[in-house]
Amino acid sequence: MIAEIISIGDELLIGQTINTNAAFISGALTDIGFDVNWITTVGDDEHNINAALVQAQQRADVIITTGGLGPTHDDITKKVFADYFKTDMVLHKATFNRLQQRFKKRNLVLTESNIAQAMVPTTAKVLENPVGTAPALLFKRENKLFFVLPGVPVEALAIMNDVIVPHLKKINDQIILKRVLHTSGIPESYLFEQLGDIAELEKDAKIAFLPQLGRVDVRVTSRGKFEEQCREKIERVEQFIRNRVSKNIWGTDDETFDEVVAGLLKRQNKTISVAELGTRAAISSLFTRNDKPEEFFIQGLVISSAEHLKSIFNLKQLKSQPENIYSEPGVRWLAEWTRTAMNSDLALAVAFKPQIEKGTFIALSDQDQTIFSEQSYPFPPEIAIKRIESACLHFLYQYLI
Amino acid sequence: MIAEIISIGDELLIGQTINTNAAFISGALTDIGFDVNWITTVGDDEHNINAALVQAQQRADVIITTGGLGPTHDDITKKVFADYFKTDMVLHKATFNRLQQRFKKRNLVLTESNIAQAMVPTTAKVLENPVGTAPALLFKRENKLFFVLPGVPVEALAIMNDVIVPHLKKINDQIILKRVLHTSGIPESYLFEQLGDIAELEKDAKIAFLPQLGRVDVRVTSRGKFEEQCREKIERVEQFIRNRVSKNIWGTDDETFDEVVAGLLKRQNKTISVAELGTRAAISSLFTRNDKPEEFFIQGLVISSAEHLKSIFNLKQLKSQPENIYSEPGVRWLAEWTRTAMNSDLALAVAFKPQIEKGTFIALSDQDQTIFSEQSYPFPPEIAIKRIESACLHFLYQYLI
Repeated sequence: MIAEIISIGDELLIGQTINTNAAFISGALTDIGFDVNWITTVGDDEHNINAALVQAQQRADVIITTGGLGPTHDDITKKVFADYFKTDMVLHKATFNRLQQRFKKRNLVLTESNIAQAMVPTTAKVLENPVGTAPALLFKRENKLFFVLPGVPVEALAIMNDVIVPHLKKINDQIILKRVLHTSGIPESYLFEQLGDIAELEKDAKIAFLPQLGRVDVRVTSRGKFEEQCREKIERVEQFIRNRVSKNIWGTDDETFDEVVAGLLKRQNKTISVAELGTRAAISSLFTRNDKPEEFFIQGLVISSAEHLKSIFNLKQLKSQPENIYSEPGVRWLAEWTRTAMNSDLALAVAFKPQIEKGTFIALSDQDQTIFSEQSYPFPPEIAIKRIESACLHFLYQYLI
Repeated sequence: MIAEIISIGDELLIGQTINTNAAFISGALTDIGFDVNWITTVGDDEHNINAALVQAQQRADVIITTGGLGPTHDDITKKVFADYFKTDMVLHKATFNRLQQRFKKRNLVLTESNIAQAMVPTTAKVLENPVGTAPALLFKRENKLFFVLPGVPVEALAIMNDVIVPHLKKINDQIILKRVLHTSGIPESYLFEQLGDIAELEKDAKIAFLPQLGRVDVRVTSRGKFEEQCREKIERVEQFIRNRVSKNIWGTDDETFDEVVAGLLKRQNKTISVAELGTRAAISSLFTRNDKPEEFFIQGLVISSAEHLKSIFNLKQLKSQPENIYSEPGVRWLAEWTRTAMNSDLALAVAFKPQIEKGTFIALSDQDQTIFSEQSYPFPPEIAIKRIESACLHFLYQYLI
């Protein structure tokens, strides 16, 4: 089946906002077997929204729009849809009540523009927005579905995942099975060559290499009428890949690298602390994303300079700190100090200086030893830090398995 | 003048690639006074690319396409353009020579697909690609300009900046000035109502409300023939808005909230430490994003549970810790303890439990007092934490000004 996305919002046409919604939604639609052939972006402009709707309706079975549902004067999507479907607006009680409660809790009074947010076109089905105030809408015309979502990315994402994907899965009968194998510590080109003749493998399932920052995912996709058949093909290809690069595969599908590493720590009954310098709290963040970080993560220390470390009370009781933390002895010392200070089984210390060669120092300390790794990420911080996250998890993973 | 963007590439329709090119190009066009009303994304598909071109030609004076100029079988943009303009392909000598030199340097042999990259439609003007192998093209028809760019973002960006923007500046003489006012601590609907009759204000400049998580931006745009006039209009509207909500405006244009707060701390010669529980290191990250965090940020302590706090060595020397950190006394204690332990002028402590009402506790401690704020973000962590970031910065900002 064919789907189309219409992104609505002036901010998308003046370069202020990158259209992440369209990428996310097209990905979700592709995952459940829809073909997305067009994505159209228009402003908060009645004429253009209408023209985009007319076009999309001619080409697609499912149309998803985002944006223009907010409370201010330039949010006109709902009105354009009401006109398009020749319907009136009515107050949607449940949305109004939810707004009222929300405002009461915050000791705010509902304004007229808030009440306007609870008005919906009569013929639309209201879809609950689990994370925001603007309700999403569903219209039907000639067997075609029109989903109208707010533009705030977390809201669009939540409604897409919770409501629309389950709905659309029921109406598309092609089976699409996917398996993603997550690897680390092996470059894309090397991985590619390890797998030999891809064309031969692709007789069973389509293979895509998806490089992330610091690691590579391999996606295996099989389509067909019969689930059992698709599953067998995927399993055959997966087994083939595992035979070639088993020790680089740390997880599959929705598993994340930090969860896998946290799982290993929990199963081995090991606790860890982190000290990090220059990495913008990214490594502490990795471990505290967990549902129950307290089961394995003791503390993270986010340091802005080695100098300030000395101002922590009672630090003088410890063995002396090296002059330069950005060095092998410096980061080894930091890992050992952190393990002792925080009283954990393991401690991971990271020090990173951006934009230079060999500027990343990683050490992992346990009761018996401290191991060390030096990396080179001479990139701007945003990019380098993503790679350092992967490098730290890879370092810890290889230690734990 | 009117411009349109056509983004070409299957990867944009399956969610694999976020369309950053369209955001960058629309921003660059807006900055030089063009109106971008439509952005269309299609796959590497002859029929759809052609249809998008037909539409765009009807609506716009300038059309910019990206993507589909690479060396592989699915890169068909050049062929579609040659057909659209009914022209042949010829070898472009300069491009061919450049390719040959580049390959020689890397000891590689030119393949047939590389030679195909140096073929260009006869009637096109070739624009130099300063950073890649695929040349960009310019076609003209009935006073309309068609720029054809490669899809690799660094290449599209370089050609846009070096060649296209200078070219287009000459043919458009409209001035566009923008001012973004960043606010916090006031909901969008409240802000909207505070400003009174928007239609009256919009006689001078266009106003847009752009809600972020936990804060709202107000964008004021003025267009005209004379820069001085546009500037005056923007200033008039800005002053009007400032008169209404002055204490909620923390910055303008490219300023970020964390930079503004860091700037205040630096100017007031105050240092700060952070202790955070449940916020995934987000608050420590806010402060260490700075270019020189060591000038004001002492340390961040990322805690996974109040229990583990006790395992930090020598903690017993401090006054006793309350039973429950997720409480007003708990987080006040944590702020005071952190300020003492880390030896900083200020300490900000945050404790957050997801998915519950009144689950966010914030305290800020200085030498004389500890102030406290309780917030309610009963959302999933990803969303709640973004709001807590804004709430913490707002809390600190209001303390510092």
